Amino acid sequence: MVYISSTQNTKIKELKKLQTHKGRKKQQRYLLEGEHLIFEALQQQISLQDVYVTTDYLNRDPKHLVRDHFPNAIEISREVAQALGETVTPQGIIAVTPLVALQAPTLTHGTWLLLDQIQDPGNVGTMIRTADAAGFTGVILSPDSADFYSAKVQRAMQGSQFHLQIQSMELTQAIEQLKAAQIPVYGTLVDETAQPYQTLTAPQQFALIMGNEAHGLNPDLAKLTDLNLYIPILGQAESLNVGVAAGILIYRLSV
Amino acid sequence: MVYISSTQNTKIKELKKLQTHKGRKKQQRYLLEGEHLIFEALQQQISLQDVYVTTDYLNRDPKHLVRDHFPNAIEISREVAQALGETVTPQGIIAVTPLVALQAPTLTHGTWLLLDQIQDPGNVGTMIRTADAAGFTGVILSPDSADFYSAKVQRAMQGSQFHLQIQSMELTQAIEQLKAAQIPVYGTLVDETAQPYQTLTAPQQFALIMGNEAHGLNPDLAKLTDLNLYIPILGQAESLNVGVAAGILIYRLSV
Repeated sequence: MVYISSTQNTKIKELKKLQTHKGRKKQQRYLLEGEHLIFEALQQQISLQDVYVTTDYLNRDPKHLVRDHFPNAIEISREVAQALGETVTPQGIIAVTPLVALQAPTLTHGTWLLLDQIQDPGNVGTMIRTADAAGFTGVILSPDSADFYSAKVQRAMQGSQFHLQIQSMELTQAIEQLKAAQIPVYGTLVDETAQPYQTLTAPQQFALIMGNEAHGLNPDLAKLTDLNLYIPILGQAESLNVGVAAGILIYRLSV
Repeated sequence: MVYISSTQNTKIKELKKLQTHKGRKKQQRYLLEGEHLIFEALQQQISLQDVYVTTDYLNRDPKHLVRDHFPNAIEISREVAQALGETVTPQGIIAVTPLVALQAPTLTHGTWLLLDQIQDPGNVGTMIRTADAAGFTGVILSPDSADFYSAKVQRAMQGSQFHLQIQSMELTQAIEQLKAAQIPVYGTLVDETAQPYQTLTAPQQFALIMGNEAHGLNPDLAKLTDLNLYIPILGQAESLNVGVAAGILIYRLSV
């Protein structure tokens, strides 16, 4: 088995570039960190290129991942694992996956979450995970949302990218397609003139748009929706975290 | 106006200790970072000790905070602000606040959120913010939850600590008091044998317990509740983020 102990190794230096948007775009691949995500990818038959494991992980191999699936895994030092991973205490296993050219989503049926300029990677990932939990068909991210392939989004998504159709797309275009398919589109506003969310009985198919953390939904998009919803604030907080707000709405409209 | 440019200044070195639980406990005070939190504290007439502002903030003073409220603010360099704050781009204003001996909460009426060993500071803060938005009476944290006064909890709470009764307390004791007051206590489980949350019509007063991110609610506590709820997973995600789950339940039971 190949063993790499130095963070200055050429291969490792190339992999470290995958921590940036630019590097991922250039190399057309991204890093999947941790047993859970790699296990999910395997189950979904996602193509995994090289797999890297620490000596400690290799010795334990708790789920027989290396033994059964990655006999050609490359052994790395803990130092290398720390350099490649996002967390201080690396899980000890990391894989490289191609950035697949995602298929254009079929916005002709189903339930959809549209994210308008969500900046925080944790929020993007959490909302995709919630949409997955609620059985949504897919998620459309506006091109200026946080980078879907970043480690922070990956960690918050917990593998939901393997369960849903996910695509980056101009939301005006997505709304147009949804309307053509007669799927109602609901915006969300922090505005008491919008409709209180709990009064809506949702149809089987719909799309929900969540807006930017600081500025809310783009007013131009809010004009294109069939209806705009708001969540009443009953106490003294100024607002809800956008991921929490998405959870409240997604589950209210789905269950 | 006093000006401190060096992170090696004795006063600054003492303040830096407030970034740890130990330091906060010893000095009995904590740091409030950013305009929003300091403004909230002022509105709630919270006692603020020293206030520190960067030269840049001082020149802008966008809300006239320094001019109207803190004429004795201490000017600091950007380097000092970065050393004291949690964020790379500091907001330029930071205050020191006494750790007040919180009053024992009055668990005799109202709606309460109980947090059982929540480890992630962002989750603790977000759940407190959501409880505030929903008009809850207060939040009880188990003693082994993430430290309430840490900068990460503060940032996620967005000032909700000034709106709610918040106390650290053994949850068995809290449940006992709630039961004595005939306030029903709902646990939350990731277990389909529990009651689906959407079938419950909540009374005016209740308490909701959220469990640890990885291990869920402590089984000993789950036995003490009046009822345990679960949120159905309709798709392929294994679970929901605990902060999102709390939002779904809190709003369902409140609105």
